Amino acid sequence: MKMYDLIVKKRNGEELSTDEINYFIHGYTKGDIPDYQASALMMAIYFQKMNMRETVDLTKAMINSGDTLNLSKIQGIKVDKHSTGGVGDTTSLVLTPMVAALGIPVAKMSGRGLGHTGGTIDKLESFNGFSVEISEKQFINNVNNIKLAIMGQTADLVPADKKLYALRDVTGTVENLSLISSSIMSKKIASGADCIVLDVKVGDGAFMKNYEQAEKLASTMVDIGERLGRKTVAVISDMDQPLGFAVGNALEVKEAIHTLKGNGPKDLLELCLTIGSNMVFLAKKAESVEQAREMLLGTIEDGSAIKKLREFITAQGGDVNQLDNTDLLPRARYIVPVKSDRSGYISKIYAQNIGLAAMELGAGRATKGDKVDLAVGIVLNKKRGDSVNTGDILAYIHSNDEGNIDIAQKRILENYIISQEKASDIPLIYNIIRK
Amino acid sequence: MKMYDLIVKKRNGEELSTDEINYFIHGYTKGDIPDYQASALMMAIYFQKMNMRETVDLTKAMINSGDTLNLSKIQGIKVDKHSTGGVGDTTSLVLTPMVAALGIPVAKMSGRGLGHTGGTIDKLESFNGFSVEISEKQFINNVNNIKLAIMGQTADLVPADKKLYALRDVTGTVENLSLISSSIMSKKIASGADCIVLDVKVGDGAFMKNYEQAEKLASTMVDIGERLGRKTVAVISDMDQPLGFAVGNALEVKEAIHTLKGNGPKDLLELCLTIGSNMVFLAKKAESVEQAREMLLGTIEDGSAIKKLREFITAQGGDVNQLDNTDLLPRARYIVPVKSDRSGYISKIYAQNIGLAAMELGAGRATKGDKVDLAVGIVLNKKRGDSVNTGDILAYIHSNDEGNIDIAQKRILENYIISQEKASDIPLIYNIIRK
Repeated sequence: MKMYDLIVKKRNGEELSTDEINYFIHGYTKGDIPDYQASALMMAIYFQKMNMRETVDLTKAMINSGDTLNLSKIQGIKVDKHSTGGVGDTTSLVLTPMVAALGIPVAKMSGRGLGHTGGTIDKLESFNGFSVEISEKQFINNVNNIKLAIMGQTADLVPADKKLYALRDVTGTVENLSLISSSIMSKKIASGADCIVLDVKVGDGAFMKNYEQAEKLASTMVDIGERLGRKTVAVISDMDQPLGFAVGNALEVKEAIHTLKGNGPKDLLELCLTIGSNMVFLAKKAESVEQAREMLLGTIEDGSAIKKLREFITAQGGDVNQLDNTDLLPRARYIVPVKSDRSGYISKIYAQNIGLAAMELGAGRATKGDKVDLAVGIVLNKKRGDSVNTGDILAYIHSNDEGNIDIAQKRILENYIISQEKASDIPLIYNIIRK
Repeated sequence: MKMYDLIVKKRNGEELSTDEINYFIHGYTKGDIPDYQASALMMAIYFQKMNMRETVDLTKAMINSGDTLNLSKIQGIKVDKHSTGGVGDTTSLVLTPMVAALGIPVAKMSGRGLGHTGGTIDKLESFNGFSVEISEKQFINNVNNIKLAIMGQTADLVPADKKLYALRDVTGTVENLSLISSSIMSKKIASGADCIVLDVKVGDGAFMKNYEQAEKLASTMVDIGERLGRKTVAVISDMDQPLGFAVGNALEVKEAIHTLKGNGPKDLLELCLTIGSNMVFLAKKAESVEQAREMLLGTIEDGSAIKKLREFITAQGGDVNQLDNTDLLPRARYIVPVKSDRSGYISKIYAQNIGLAAMELGAGRATKGDKVDLAVGIVLNKKRGDSVNTGDILAYIHSNDEGNIDIAQKRILENYIISQEKASDIPLIYNIIRK
């Protein structure tokens, strides 16, 4: 088999066989196939696409390129969730304790990653002493004991994806349905869960800018999951404005805690209930998704969800005083209101740019080595559909550097679109894809 | 400017600006732009194509990537020819002395290259002592004195093309009109001629398999040449069977000598007259192409063409006894006839495979390091349209290795297609493209 022939075959619009896909992934991971041939193939795939059989084979080959997590020692049906990424997306922090509080094992492997804010691990490190550097044994024990644990990525999961994604990122070959979905699904499946609920974001602040794209991605990923023996459901949700109010690490932790205590933003809670009820239903803890939703609401009402978060933080060394009193979480030196310079209705908040503004304040990483400032970020005060008068506070900037504030202020004002008429509502949940 | 943006722009079907093309070629030649980004761009160009403006800019940028030959010290209008490559193509050896015999300066820079037989340089080395290792000064003196010189490629002409072609060759991105034509034209223009006549081959033994492709390539190259200030004409000629009879280095030299002496194959002579008359006309040595053709025929009739070849071989150190007596040229140990196993008319000779058979005998290079055996090859005895009876000789194998003969015999028989009815004629010259 020769890589050259694979490139030409795909370039000419033909289907790659299972063996050919395995040959490519194996050879590329080992370093036998050079980057310049891999990138040519990626670009050929961008134009000629892959069918579902090829996409599933690609996912399988990537899973087999490295270790897979063996969660068989965990009792019960293990569920996992994944979001395609948005701005101010605090769902993992809210959801996982709610689901775990119902006795469902949640074993999450998480990363730091690049983006507007840190990853789940960065956010959790807002608790002094909290650590994800736990052994696989401890991880499994924790899940068995308290039903919830999060571990940093130690095992060599899907090295093919690490290499291939880094290449696609610099060669203009990210935007292909098969490549995106196999990248996400290979990691999720290698992480060992039995059931997966995907949150596919759509809108300005998401990777998928329109519903049709998002639906295709959701449907492809659900297909892959099911064909590889994982119960998979995808929720398609709005990311045309930031989710909740907080954009920033400790700020989002605080918002998550409030939500678990029953005082969170409506949209964040609603999304958590939608994703969570599907997780609970897939884990066979409820007869229906509706029943699962009631059970999840119950974990907030009876305090079992916040109690679960407390147990989880304790088990991984975190300071729970900060949970009981959120004023003890990292706080920025400057908190500056951003006031509206006109009156009307908020018709749009450009989520992407609000995220970038938070990143510029230090909340996220532009490149791998950057240090995240857990305290800083943006807290929205008004959201889409709200009416505002001149002088009303649109948002608060949380900054540790006085010099950053003016730019952030300008960015926020630019990205709040205020019109004279109230725009029609955009749904939070567009659709739920099951097979 | 960022290479990533260029890739995405082209991928999305947009036009690259002059600056962007310069940035890419400059950066890639210097090594600042990695192969994996270049190959992604090449594949994007394969799918989205380049318009004429981009193609001309690409050619210009490639010319500027290295040295260009300054032929201003040569008196007169300098003409050059280029063939896109075929099997048994001995035109350069026949043409250049004919044109030079008319007082037109022919300053050729030539290579060895890969292929069924060696390049022009290899062929000329059939003359003992002949050398292309002459200085630029000597080269120019020779052209001024005898109107004909051939030099090995010493200057660093079009390094961008060397690098890019090697990359395209292994990434399935050779077959694009803009990339092919800029590659050829950049080298021709950097070699310094004022006028260029291109011989674009079409058919089974050529790179372009059908007339439409060949015409597009011819037309694109003529356009590039004219836009960059070179008078350019393209001849589109048949390569559905080998040209002439000989396929092999010394064998072709012998055929060239016979042709210059008035005893050559009709098709080879006809093609030389067609290409040559355009060279002479562009060099303004004739009032019309028809007149130029008569003048060229005259150089054979009055012996001035073979005399010119003699002068040229002498000037570059070659042994002209081998020209006077071609039996002194390198000869193979075994000369074996291949006899037809049936009767009928020859309807096709697969040129590509006859070329490969010659290469397997040792006449050409599969990889750069291979040594060419100047003596070996194939001499056809029958060509398309000829009638044959069982037992008639189709061709002769010239080999230095007894073990190779059976395979060559088998290959030749397989690639001579004999039918009961005489097929309709295929023209030798399809078209001549001028602007």
